[in-house]
Amino acid sequence: MTDQKAPTTIWEDPELPGFRFEATPCPAHGKARLGWLQTPHGVVETPAFIFCGTKANVKAVPMSSVKSTGTQIILSNTYHLMLQPGSQIVADHGGLHKFSGWDGPFLTDSGGFQVFSLAHGGVADEIKSARKTERPKKDVLRITEEGVAFRSYIDGSRVMLTPESSIRVQRQLGADIILTFDECTPFHVDRNYTEASLARTQRWTERSIASYLQPVDDYAPRHGSAGAQGLYGISQGGVYPDLRKRAAETLRTQPFFGYAVGGSLGNSKSQMYEVVEFASEGLHCEKPIHLLGIGGIEDIFRCVPYGIDTFDCVSPTRAARHGWALVPAQIAADCGVHKREPALNLRNATFRHDVTPIDPDCPCEACRTVSRSYLHHLLKARETLAQILLTMHNIATMNRVMADVRAGLAGGSLEPARRIWLGG
Amino acid sequence: MTDQKAPTTIWEDPELPGFRFEATPCPAHGKARLGWLQTPHGVVETPAFIFCGTKANVKAVPMSSVKSTGTQIILSNTYHLMLQPGSQIVADHGGLHKFSGWDGPFLTDSGGFQVFSLAHGGVADEIKSARKTERPKKDVLRITEEGVAFRSYIDGSRVMLTPESSIRVQRQLGADIILTFDECTPFHVDRNYTEASLARTQRWTERSIASYLQPVDDYAPRHGSAGAQGLYGISQGGVYPDLRKRAAETLRTQPFFGYAVGGSLGNSKSQMYEVVEFASEGLHCEKPIHLLGIGGIEDIFRCVPYGIDTFDCVSPTRAARHGWALVPAQIAADCGVHKREPALNLRNATFRHDVTPIDPDCPCEACRTVSRSYLHHLLKARETLAQILLTMHNIATMNRVMADVRAGLAGGSLEPARRIWLGG
Repeated sequence: MTDQKAPTTIWEDPELPGFRFEATPCPAHGKARLGWLQTPHGVVETPAFIFCGTKANVKAVPMSSVKSTGTQIILSNTYHLMLQPGSQIVADHGGLHKFSGWDGPFLTDSGGFQVFSLAHGGVADEIKSARKTERPKKDVLRITEEGVAFRSYIDGSRVMLTPESSIRVQRQLGADIILTFDECTPFHVDRNYTEASLARTQRWTERSIASYLQPVDDYAPRHGSAGAQGLYGISQGGVYPDLRKRAAETLRTQPFFGYAVGGSLGNSKSQMYEVVEFASEGLHCEKPIHLLGIGGIEDIFRCVPYGIDTFDCVSPTRAARHGWALVPAQIAADCGVHKREPALNLRNATFRHDVTPIDPDCPCEACRTVSRSYLHHLLKARETLAQILLTMHNIATMNRVMADVRAGLAGGSLEPARRIWLGG
Repeated sequence: MTDQKAPTTIWEDPELPGFRFEATPCPAHGKARLGWLQTPHGVVETPAFIFCGTKANVKAVPMSSVKSTGTQIILSNTYHLMLQPGSQIVADHGGLHKFSGWDGPFLTDSGGFQVFSLAHGGVADEIKSARKTERPKKDVLRITEEGVAFRSYIDGSRVMLTPESSIRVQRQLGADIILTFDECTPFHVDRNYTEASLARTQRWTERSIASYLQPVDDYAPRHGSAGAQGLYGISQGGVYPDLRKRAAETLRTQPFFGYAVGGSLGNSKSQMYEVVEFASEGLHCEKPIHLLGIGGIEDIFRCVPYGIDTFDCVSPTRAARHGWALVPAQIAADCGVHKREPALNLRNATFRHDVTPIDPDCPCEACRTVSRSYLHHLLKARETLAQILLTMHNIATMNRVMADVRAGLAGGSLEPARRIWLGG
């Protein structure tokens, strides 16, 4: 640990009212920093977890509960919302905030990730795993310099997504933070493909920026249906350090409010951390950095020291819907569970007679009011309430993890928090 | 309207601590009364709606929302809970209240209704409709003087339900209000069957009372796992006035805290109201009367003047899960809907662009925070949140209906409330 106190940085763009990122370096943990990310719809204390609200709702919980479990910011999906209900309907409401009833900050992705999942077949899983074969292309019709044509999964109609249309849709959706349109390359493609893809993503990035800086439809430059929007540029380049460096060098010259690390991060956890490290190294400055689609508890403790400020991942809410409750490592160990990411499978018969709460220290409604036995009963009876209560619990838990991470950074060491949540 | 003020009655049983029913007659509306039903877990202002919480949860809403939408009391089912998780597990928690996290009053039925639905095939629907043919018996193995043997729908095992076991299970569940074990006769059976069935129900009622007045398992007389329990006796006798009268005469001599009207109520709405009228007439005294399984808005306005104090029905919560929102008659009319029970089907494409709330006067989360268009989107996208928000809305709405009924009775006329909720 160094005693030298690094100065707090403040990043503001005079053309972006309502946005500001204040970051205090925590030199005991590399590039880690404690941040204060201000948006027109509220502040996000970082490091933070961004919860998945794909279709303008966090699956299985009302927004009042999303808020009461400590959530700061939600991510919604351009790809899904442009197909249903259509971004014009969201704009008619005055943007995602009024549409969904979530009045805090929103981030939307650009649609690139979902469209290329269609093209490459399941890239979502593959980015984090080792599958190397290409699956048959499903609903993508054509990828050209112009953009991507695909079939709507709603009605089979032909849809075109381009940098310009992605930005137009994101302006209508009106999220506080929006992303450039990129090709999200999977692991199984080779270096040549990755390099050519990066070059195209860079051209798409220029076009995304141009759209963002021009009036589009009824919106002023840098504005969407709910006010000013901060644009994040996405780093691609796969697992190749020189490509990631090239990506970062260009991104650093462009007028972004922040950055996001996307694309293939390797075929193992250790390679993933390496790639995040060198990809974020090139981006590191006074602007916020988001890590796309990654947010396991171990990932968070590993990547915060590389300067990652925000994470998103479907896993806490998806796991909840399948009966899994995230818990501190000691609680998992007490239940005989020794997983890399401590969690209890409440469908397990061992919980049938367990009258204790999931976690007595958790402030969520499930832990305050019912037992593991009751949740086990609801799961066996296939009652929706199981999904509701467990989603609330996992959201509350991820928010406690992040609060512990921030407290650890403020106190000079992540180690106590790491031990609580990962054990060892 | 008569000007003569009828006296408030107070009913207390010295052997039932925590119970009291105070009722103020409303002579402008027949036998209607405003009541204050005190139980060990809180007060129910009557007329009241009892929401269905079959498996110790109100489907698709957390108990915090059940409470915040104005709910006073929940009904759970002996039949379902004895099969899963088993009443011993509920007792191990200290009863349904602690098990489910609902700390207000609970009522449990005796299991008779569900078991005889198996025997007679869909009696649940038939009681309110005109089906006259007998469906094949499904899982009921044998009905004898002793009780009913049936197969568990969970694991196919053979289960016996008798008056004694029903009371034992209900003591373990620990609801504030429990019911005697009865045979719920459907409409298609003849008078002879109904008469013989009533006689058996009367013998089962005697045995239910005997169990209730004796220590059972670890429980003192009149007590269950969560304290004192008030026993309601059930009126049977089908559509036959003399049998209903016979039932009532016997029930009036027995040590019940209240009564419930059950069984076949005819093959049309008008016959149903007639049966409720003469069935409740015989029971009318200072004790509360519950109408089993009936609780449409029209039913409530028709049956309150017959002296019915509480209603239960799955329909508001079930309809919500299918996309229907209950609304005042004027709102339905404005949407071109002219149903007997005003409601909007939010799956309908007319709501796709409708940025207004379901009902601007409704205090529920759905109406305060999102539009019909958003709910339509969630329904089309098959998001669970649609069920959650609409269930909250329909609960809030039924509770507003009942509050308007009580205010109408207090003010001397049900007519303004009837016009708001049913139109005309």
